[in-house]
Amino acid sequence: MKSLQVLLVAGTHGNEINAPWLIDQWAKSPDLIETNGVKVTWVIGNPAARKEGKRYLDSDLNRSFSNDFSSLNDRELLRANELSSTYGPKGTNPCQIALDFHSTTSAMGSSVVVYGRRPSDLGLASLIQARLGLPIYLHEGDQSQTGFLVESWPCGLVIEIGPVSQSLLHSRIVRQTQIVLETCLELIAKASSGLLNYPDRLVIHKHLGSIDFPRDLSRHPSATIHPQLQGADWKPIKKGSPLFLSADGDVVSYQGNDSPIPVFINEAAYAEKNIAMSLTKREVLRFEKGWGKELNYLLGSQ
Amino acid sequence: MKSLQVLLVAGTHGNEINAPWLIDQWAKSPDLIETNGVKVTWVIGNPAARKEGKRYLDSDLNRSFSNDFSSLNDRELLRANELSSTYGPKGTNPCQIALDFHSTTSAMGSSVVVYGRRPSDLGLASLIQARLGLPIYLHEGDQSQTGFLVESWPCGLVIEIGPVSQSLLHSRIVRQTQIVLETCLELIAKASSGLLNYPDRLVIHKHLGSIDFPRDLSRHPSATIHPQLQGADWKPIKKGSPLFLSADGDVVSYQGNDSPIPVFINEAAYAEKNIAMSLTKREVLRFEKGWGKELNYLLGSQ
Repeated sequence: MKSLQVLLVAGTHGNEINAPWLIDQWAKSPDLIETNGVKVTWVIGNPAARKEGKRYLDSDLNRSFSNDFSSLNDRELLRANELSSTYGPKGTNPCQIALDFHSTTSAMGSSVVVYGRRPSDLGLASLIQARLGLPIYLHEGDQSQTGFLVESWPCGLVIEIGPVSQSLLHSRIVRQTQIVLETCLELIAKASSGLLNYPDRLVIHKHLGSIDFPRDLSRHPSATIHPQLQGADWKPIKKGSPLFLSADGDVVSYQGNDSPIPVFINEAAYAEKNIAMSLTKREVLRFEKGWGKELNYLLGSQ
Repeated sequence: MKSLQVLLVAGTHGNEINAPWLIDQWAKSPDLIETNGVKVTWVIGNPAARKEGKRYLDSDLNRSFSNDFSSLNDRELLRANELSSTYGPKGTNPCQIALDFHSTTSAMGSSVVVYGRRPSDLGLASLIQARLGLPIYLHEGDQSQTGFLVESWPCGLVIEIGPVSQSLLHSRIVRQTQIVLETCLELIAKASSGLLNYPDRLVIHKHLGSIDFPRDLSRHPSATIHPQLQGADWKPIKKGSPLFLSADGDVVSYQGNDSPIPVFINEAAYAEKNIAMSLTKREVLRFEKGWGKELNYLLGSQ
């Protein structure tokens, strides 16, 4: 673990204020977070947007980490470039693992988001799930959503915690953030020392696609999330399950013949992305030796 | 009720999106809201802020209705002037009663806010409470909070519904908004026709003052609302009740010898106003004949 450094990111979205608040408290009380000896550096992802109380200024920072940083007339693209060139694996203060702490208005509890199937990500996610039982949302194959922060590091996961309002400091969200953060560091420390066995499987919820709100001619939502679906993240729906409810009582139901599992139901920031919820499929993956090997390599362990 | 017109305001704060959404649906489906024959006109309070998804642009519109409109370099002061000169009692499209629909991140359910003790406000609040049982927050005697919209009309109440995140469309909040709106119109219609008896009392929660978060040297909150208090609006606290919890476990407790009742606990927009919660005292007021007389006068009834 000699050369390993973990990057902790909070406030990638300026109106998700709980993880940044925890980081601020840690800066004042260095003993607040148990790091288990892991070398960490933390950063506020988008301090300018945080100051404004907005998710972003020009564009979503967490969709700005493509390989193409040529269009630098955008403050978030500039910031993405800055974060990569400072904390990226070839940066001036290089980190090998990034943990990016978010909150959501969806009732998803604590969960982990993995982007694609990089072996080291799946290795670390396996350790977290084996310890905390958190559900894993595996986001892949969606060309409309790319450029996520953690993809610029050799290993990186997003931690999502909800439900909580935008711009609301909430003791439960702070506590859940701290538990996941400290557990991740403990697992990294133990895996680095060869003290952990990897589990034999990983349960994922694989991204299938997203459903938008019904919209009127002005492209505004013409229905709300149905009250039976509101707050029912991680529970399967089937043909006939109510999705949306209009003001005059019309119900839009699910028409597919499969039984997908919705996540990010009514995340406030996603309405502008035409996402009322995303649908997933639960899959059990057998742990592959390569996952552990890649993660161990990053961790500098055997 | 010949000359009576009721002004319905939604979206006075641009990130409280549920009442404006209901109004939009009503515009598309004129039968959506049962008006009971009451002549109404509705308006989006702050359409520019709504478009930006922000509470306000320059200053809080719902603190901008003072009598002094001289400082017109502020978009909300301009908008306040415009609303008053259009829909005020002496405006081009005069209304006598204003109902201003808000939402809050506090777990207050549906409630009514009354500013001061104008007889007609108390008369209308009495009718609403007798029908729906809603708690009444009587805001008075607070020089740091003035210039509320409804004070520019001869009779006006704020309806608050929560909890809901800022900028989140939520079926429950929409439904609660519609119930209170339709009930208010029904009560106004019946009272205008002399078909209602006023109750003999009104239970109010009188504003005593507000408590701010503990703050650090940078004036940022240094503690969260205590988990036992979060969501516990309308429930009395007493000496020793926990108010705040810091990240390292320190608890700030209530020190007064009275038993105040907190409201607006952790309203996200109030942190910048140095309000973590407001404290109230429950009082039972005997219905005064003058309340009914003033309201009946506005309603054009006997």
